[in-house]
Amino acid sequence: MMTGAGGNDEAVEVSAGAQTGALLDVALVHYPVLNRQGEVIGSAVTNLDIHDIARTARTYGVRRYYLVTPYEDQQRLVAELLAHWLTGRGGKLNPARKTALELVRVVPDLAALYEQVSAARAQRPLILATSARDQAARMDYGQARQQLAVGKPALILLGTAWGLAPAALAGVDAFLPPISGGGDYNHLPVRAAAAITLDRLCR
Amino acid sequence: MMTGAGGNDEAVEVSAGAQTGALLDVALVHYPVLNRQGEVIGSAVTNLDIHDIARTARTYGVRRYYLVTPYEDQQRLVAELLAHWLTGRGGKLNPARKTALELVRVVPDLAALYEQVSAARAQRPLILATSARDQAARMDYGQARQQLAVGKPALILLGTAWGLAPAALAGVDAFLPPISGGGDYNHLPVRAAAAITLDRLCR
Repeated sequence: MMTGAGGNDEAVEVSAGAQTGALLDVALVHYPVLNRQGEVIGSAVTNLDIHDIARTARTYGVRRYYLVTPYEDQQRLVAELLAHWLTGRGGKLNPARKTALELVRVVPDLAALYEQVSAARAQRPLILATSARDQAARMDYGQARQQLAVGKPALILLGTAWGLAPAALAGVDAFLPPISGGGDYNHLPVRAAAAITLDRLCR
Repeated sequence: MMTGAGGNDEAVEVSAGAQTGALLDVALVHYPVLNRQGEVIGSAVTNLDIHDIARTARTYGVRRYYLVTPYEDQQRLVAELLAHWLTGRGGKLNPARKTALELVRVVPDLAALYEQVSAARAQRPLILATSARDQAARMDYGQARQQLAVGKPALILLGTAWGLAPAALAGVDAFLPPISGGGDYNHLPVRAAAAITLDRLCR
């Protein structure tokens, strides 16, 4: 909404929000997810999900924003987009966008995701999934904040299309409650769900 | 993220969130806003801002989501898009999207916006602007929630491009604090700012 100095790793204010965000990684899963009919599919990476969630992740001081896709053409597309912003014209014209997109990494599958985050954290993070459906192994936002407050890193899995497929849920430690606005409409964009989830965790 | 029954006006759960949301209107302002150089411009309406913020507004039970643009070609474009979803093929294929887009209205300017919302509320709402910049007349989220808790309706102004121009700030009662994630990065997408603002107000 507004230009400014732009964030950088050296100049982050020390505050509860920033400390919490630094314990978080976010992953947007494109496979395996469900389609409208409940079948397992792979979804296409969208330019907008990359930009919006990267900007939100940077706002909250998140360590990395991972895109999970096994498709090589999609991985190439992301690499081209990132090159435009990180080393090409895009970043010169809009340095704040570059700062956000520096957080993005591509991994082929959840196994590689868990391996990379666990290596970076020197421990397996708490793996939390968001879901518009109600799930059994729930952890509410207060409980998740308590884990973060004692220094436990967490990895937030966000699903594209009609949500994470059952196979993607196998490694998950707990589910954050569906985001409710008080009514029964549960069709929030994943970009909005990412923003609300990070704001609630870093509150 | 997930299909479901879809929200409708008759079947909204009674809860603090839904009651609060019903007191809110949201407006996305495309003129007058600032460009990167701080000059007053009109921005283009984007498909994505319409869909994302409509879905978020519906989630929180917001009464109306207004697009403020004086440009007739932009108004026609919105009308065509809405027709596709409200009376055309789109709504049949994706009824949940239709339910969200039913909230959208187009107004040519802020004067018309204030007039319409005041008429619908039978009183002038509290007009709150969001800003990535720090502003003088602040109202924090707790104070805004107190106003809503006693039944005062509020209209939330969101700016596109590099934020609301000074002329757009004249009728504003107060500014919600800039959304901070604990660091100094203030380049949140307006779609994410809308989601976080509604979640904080309806908490």
